[in-house]
Amino acid sequence: MLREVPVEEAWRRKYPERTILVVSVNREGRPNIITLGWNMPTSVRPPMVAISIGVSRYSHKLISESGEFVLAFPSEGMENAILFCGTYSGRDVDKFKATGLTPIKAKYVKPPLIGEATVNMECRIASSIRTGDHTIFVGEILTAYVSEDDKPVLFNMGNCVFKGFKCW
Amino acid sequence: MLREVPVEEAWRRKYPERTILVVSVNREGRPNIITLGWNMPTSVRPPMVAISIGVSRYSHKLISESGEFVLAFPSEGMENAILFCGTYSGRDVDKFKATGLTPIKAKYVKPPLIGEATVNMECRIASSIRTGDHTIFVGEILTAYVSEDDKPVLFNMGNCVFKGFKCW
Repeated sequence: MLREVPVEEAWRRKYPERTILVVSVNREGRPNIITLGWNMPTSVRPPMVAISIGVSRYSHKLISESGEFVLAFPSEGMENAILFCGTYSGRDVDKFKATGLTPIKAKYVKPPLIGEATVNMECRIASSIRTGDHTIFVGEILTAYVSEDDKPVLFNMGNCVFKGFKCW
Repeated sequence: MLREVPVEEAWRRKYPERTILVVSVNREGRPNIITLGWNMPTSVRPPMVAISIGVSRYSHKLISESGEFVLAFPSEGMENAILFCGTYSGRDVDKFKATGLTPIKAKYVKPPLIGEATVNMECRIASSIRTGDHTIFVGEILTAYVSEDDKPVLFNMGNCVFKGFKCW
């Protein structure tokens, strides 16, 4: 039997959700990190990814202005960084310093890679579209990296609980 | 240590991936089902969801023409239906008949709900954008349903293996 419910109640069944960290820079090159749950691949050739960011977020402003971002998959041990980068605004705090994550120079874009992440992708905005209270930014993936340490990837299980999976 | 790799190698670390079934109808009202791995919420108010469909797919044509779809989360026991709806084209086969899934009349849109799915959402296209070899369709979620049977939701673990999670 199906029961009609408010949309947010139906979304409670969406977990595990792939959680990503997105790095961007301001005009002075200072990097910021935001935690996002809303992301998906969206093209094979060329490789592209879509991320959805709330219009009021500082990262929304930085990515709109710079047209670039780095997308990273967090690995086990980064639970606190995920929560921190999803809670505080880069307007108020330097998130690389606060989390202790290691910025590594990227090859094609200004935002740095995250040294501890299991996956990093360098992305350049191909297009964007406003969707309600968020904007979808579509990035062409210029190149990608994996970590050699082979740690499980962290996923959001709802209620701020994270679980590591390793499926490769 | 980070190692630069082809983008598809980095994507291998993306699992578990939320897999959905998307129902659409042709001009005669005949329903079709496609299995999709690329989907995400993209607005809270109004509630919206984004799905990415390859431009050559039959469902791409149907949704472009009709402007409506139903999004469903598959539950345990629907493994074969997921594979079938992701393998065959609705140009050639009636997927409701072939899978035995139960179409249930929706409230606001022409495509039917899937009786066996743990979540169903009725969606009307708000916008769309071409992204490489896919199109992102953005749907406003008009209403949603959950099943009472409380079965785990199936996720793609890569290599056509599915696993059920229950996080609510």
